[in-house]
Amino acid sequence: MIFATFLLNLILATGWMRQVMGGFPMVTPTVGDIWPRPQFADISNAKHLVIHPDTFMFVVVGYTCDIVEEATKRYMNILSKSTSSQREAGEALEGGSGIHGVLGHLNVNLLAECEDFPYQGMDEYYELKVATPDAPGEASLTAYSVWGIVRGLETFSQLVQSDSSSLKIMSAEIMDFPRFSYRGLMLDTSRHFLPRAKIQETLDLMAMNKFNVFHWHIVDDQSFPYVSTAFPDLSLLGAYTPRHVYTVDDVADVIEYARLRGIRVVPEFDTPGHTRSWGPGQPCLLTECYKGSDPDGTFGPIDPSHSANYDFLDAFFWEVTSRFPDLYIHLGADEVSFDCWKSNPHISDFMEQLGISGDYKKLEEYYITKLFDIIQNYPTNNRYLVWQDVFDKGVSLPNSTVVQVWQDGDYPEDFMAEIDAVTSEGFFTILSSCWYLNLDTFGSDWFDYYSCEPHDFEGSEAQKQLVLGGEACVWTEYEDRTNLIPRTWPRAALVAEKLWSAASDTVSTEGVPSRLDEHRCRLLARGYDVEPLLPSYCSADIALGE
Amino acid sequence: MIFATFLLNLILATGWMRQVMGGFPMVTPTVGDIWPRPQFADISNAKHLVIHPDTFMFVVVGYTCDIVEEATKRYMNILSKSTSSQREAGEALEGGSGIHGVLGHLNVNLLAECEDFPYQGMDEYYELKVATPDAPGEASLTAYSVWGIVRGLETFSQLVQSDSSSLKIMSAEIMDFPRFSYRGLMLDTSRHFLPRAKIQETLDLMAMNKFNVFHWHIVDDQSFPYVSTAFPDLSLLGAYTPRHVYTVDDVADVIEYARLRGIRVVPEFDTPGHTRSWGPGQPCLLTECYKGSDPDGTFGPIDPSHSANYDFLDAFFWEVTSRFPDLYIHLGADEVSFDCWKSNPHISDFMEQLGISGDYKKLEEYYITKLFDIIQNYPTNNRYLVWQDVFDKGVSLPNSTVVQVWQDGDYPEDFMAEIDAVTSEGFFTILSSCWYLNLDTFGSDWFDYYSCEPHDFEGSEAQKQLVLGGEACVWTEYEDRTNLIPRTWPRAALVAEKLWSAASDTVSTEGVPSRLDEHRCRLLARGYDVEPLLPSYCSADIALGE
Repeated sequence: MIFATFLLNLILATGWMRQVMGGFPMVTPTVGDIWPRPQFADISNAKHLVIHPDTFMFVVVGYTCDIVEEATKRYMNILSKSTSSQREAGEALEGGSGIHGVLGHLNVNLLAECEDFPYQGMDEYYELKVATPDAPGEASLTAYSVWGIVRGLETFSQLVQSDSSSLKIMSAEIMDFPRFSYRGLMLDTSRHFLPRAKIQETLDLMAMNKFNVFHWHIVDDQSFPYVSTAFPDLSLLGAYTPRHVYTVDDVADVIEYARLRGIRVVPEFDTPGHTRSWGPGQPCLLTECYKGSDPDGTFGPIDPSHSANYDFLDAFFWEVTSRFPDLYIHLGADEVSFDCWKSNPHISDFMEQLGISGDYKKLEEYYITKLFDIIQNYPTNNRYLVWQDVFDKGVSLPNSTVVQVWQDGDYPEDFMAEIDAVTSEGFFTILSSCWYLNLDTFGSDWFDYYSCEPHDFEGSEAQKQLVLGGEACVWTEYEDRTNLIPRTWPRAALVAEKLWSAASDTVSTEGVPSRLDEHRCRLLARGYDVEPLLPSYCSADIALGE
Repeated sequence: MIFATFLLNLILATGWMRQVMGGFPMVTPTVGDIWPRPQFADISNAKHLVIHPDTFMFVVVGYTCDIVEEATKRYMNILSKSTSSQREAGEALEGGSGIHGVLGHLNVNLLAECEDFPYQGMDEYYELKVATPDAPGEASLTAYSVWGIVRGLETFSQLVQSDSSSLKIMSAEIMDFPRFSYRGLMLDTSRHFLPRAKIQETLDLMAMNKFNVFHWHIVDDQSFPYVSTAFPDLSLLGAYTPRHVYTVDDVADVIEYARLRGIRVVPEFDTPGHTRSWGPGQPCLLTECYKGSDPDGTFGPIDPSHSANYDFLDAFFWEVTSRFPDLYIHLGADEVSFDCWKSNPHISDFMEQLGISGDYKKLEEYYITKLFDIIQNYPTNNRYLVWQDVFDKGVSLPNSTVVQVWQDGDYPEDFMAEIDAVTSEGFFTILSSCWYLNLDTFGSDWFDYYSCEPHDFEGSEAQKQLVLGGEACVWTEYEDRTNLIPRTWPRAALVAEKLWSAASDTVSTEGVPSRLDEHRCRLLARGYDVEPLLPSYCSADIALGE
């Protein structure tokens, strides 16, 4: 009722509306448009080839490895079930000049040996040719790295359209690579536990949108689901229940699942605040808060005055960095409240010894510096990200630190000023302020996600190069397995495109609703509960729903 | 991150927090609390009986019929799979004074013959006794109507708790009946098509929350999924696709599914506006909009100047009221825009003939009066609801009309003033303004749903009696099968309790989060994707998620 006017304004403002036969959906979806949009693409409806899924093959003609083999299997599976993924594909293709033969295989041509694990700055470039003038009945995918092969297979799968009788692929010539090297999605598994199956679904969808970093905010105040082998009491006493945990096998499985999709796993163990759930399993770790001269039974941040705590942190993070292969770990360091520290007389004594009485920022810096030293002394996997808070407090940071900007989501000038400040001091940064997906309000708020531009500040070229990319964040106060997928997708797809595609191609939202409509129906047809962002329909509304 | 402060304020404001072993969820759920809260209940943890699901029986000792038989089957099934539906039930029950025997059966005692269909004002009263002092090892459910039996079985099932080894039921003496007779939920199946399975899930959850009206906003501008036997072109040309429809069988199945759960089905066919999708299948029905002296190819509301349109409406609504058994139909009549009527010279001529030139409210009244006359002349099923718009425009309405108040959701004074105005003129009303569930913004907005009170206006006792109840509305611009259940539930449960339970029991939200936490875990354990409204956990997070 109330939305009629709202939607009408949207239609008038964006010129979306196009009437089609069969009801009046808000938009007509595109056909065969790639998401995220490639850097260079010449795709033509004028000529297309038929694909018979029973006989079609991926033919590996270059280097290969398990990542290539598993990826071709996945996409073979997607092609096999690609019936009716787009509702008007048949018609649209009929509108072209007809079939120009059968495509029997895609040559998959990896030009160099595989790398084992994805990493910051990896090469994701690929070239894809289908029925080009020089090879009219053929198709080839070429890349210098296995990560380009993984990205290119996704693009290939999106070129395939189905009608009632067969699969068809349009002719295409594509050269593609990401604009930003860090394209992340964060999940919080502490406020609510997310079963492994939902993390895997998230990784599937990330790969289909060319994300490359899974930031796993694995523990927080509310629960500690990470099972540590060295400190089993942490999850034994800090998880919601003994079943609400990620075992050693679970963690290894998530890392492997992500690796095969070209996705890094960056775990976050946030300290010294947000650590309430660490307390039961590690006595004396947290600061006891006092009321007057006695402890009041509550706890604050990690107690920086106990030297034994640094031994614990050393052993704990050693285990973590041994189990997670990425060079980077996220050390959190956000929202440290000083109230509990201020109440505790032992902390006051300790600060007096250090000669920093009353200066709690210095106490936080003391802790952070000790922690950073511990991590930096590891022989490998010794780089880190932190939330912007420590930078804002003026804590001294090594210049390899990546600062994640997350505050002031409603005030672009403010978060862009922060990006400017962080990079002007020579730090790497990633932007999240505008991409807190769990703060969704109403259907069309995705406009804001798409309009957020990480380079939209007055900085030098050198500063802009320090912007590694961005990250969509999903905090789970109100999300669990019941609503994670629809609340996150397809919103996250807009962030994915913003970070992958050319800046000039993502300036305007014109045409995006039609493209998003196709993309969301594609993901729905693949079996994921990707919610609608406008009034429309998909073939898979029924096929998978009844 | 950003929520820490927000949540903390919430905790401080409501006194929710209670620390438990195993992480730090925001609340500790209640154990065996009934949702919605019964009118009179004496439930005691001090004494409880064991239930063996393999041998437990519902024993029908009074009248019976298919509604009773099917209901006992459903609840037998729920008991059978009630393992670990509440996470701490075992502990809580251990805390009582132990087991007092085995409960072998529940006597189901219906004191009068069954009625076939639920209806406005039906009797839903029931009494439930479990291990009362006069019958310590027994349990009985007594009602004067089959609808009371259906409601009481739900309550009985909520008294049953499980631990790892068995089911237990607390002693209880309950007398219960609804505060309001109309407790509705509206689904829009036009903006997005909802497969029948999702409508059935909705009806399941409605029954578990003691809702009794399913208002089916079945068609609208965007699509016409209702298959009419007399006018098949309406869906043939107006549905999104030939598969996005509700066949005769689908409709009959929904009505039957609802009937067995004591839920009325009130269909809405909204006219004269919101009818864009009717146009392709019924030429000349809609007003042609003009630009200057020529039609511009767009269409407006139903054309009230074509007398043939009233013949169509008569035949169409005759079919509808024949297929839907409820005495009431919803006739919509909201948001009629006059722009198109103003542009059309034939409309102007017609108004001149009527002597109402320039008075488009009178034209709307002309249409509405003709339509109402059609419906009122049917021998049965001739009552109706309308949205508040026609009342606001001063259209003359018969006093049996039920006016649904939906506007000004953000301004309680305004919508309560509307309730006052509607009832002061002697009309029945139901309230929806504050219960547009699809407008959800962020986790804790449910406070507002719970705080909305339909009697919160300065009116006479007679006026208050005209408030039949209320209705939660789910408009589906941004909802389909992927997100319908989690976006609607458990939010709708708060509306359900507001409308069922005693006014004095729903004044404050104190204690509600803990009760809601238990209820949502209960529904999750029964297999529904009911989303979390605060940081916590359920046993079924994993059992059904992996």
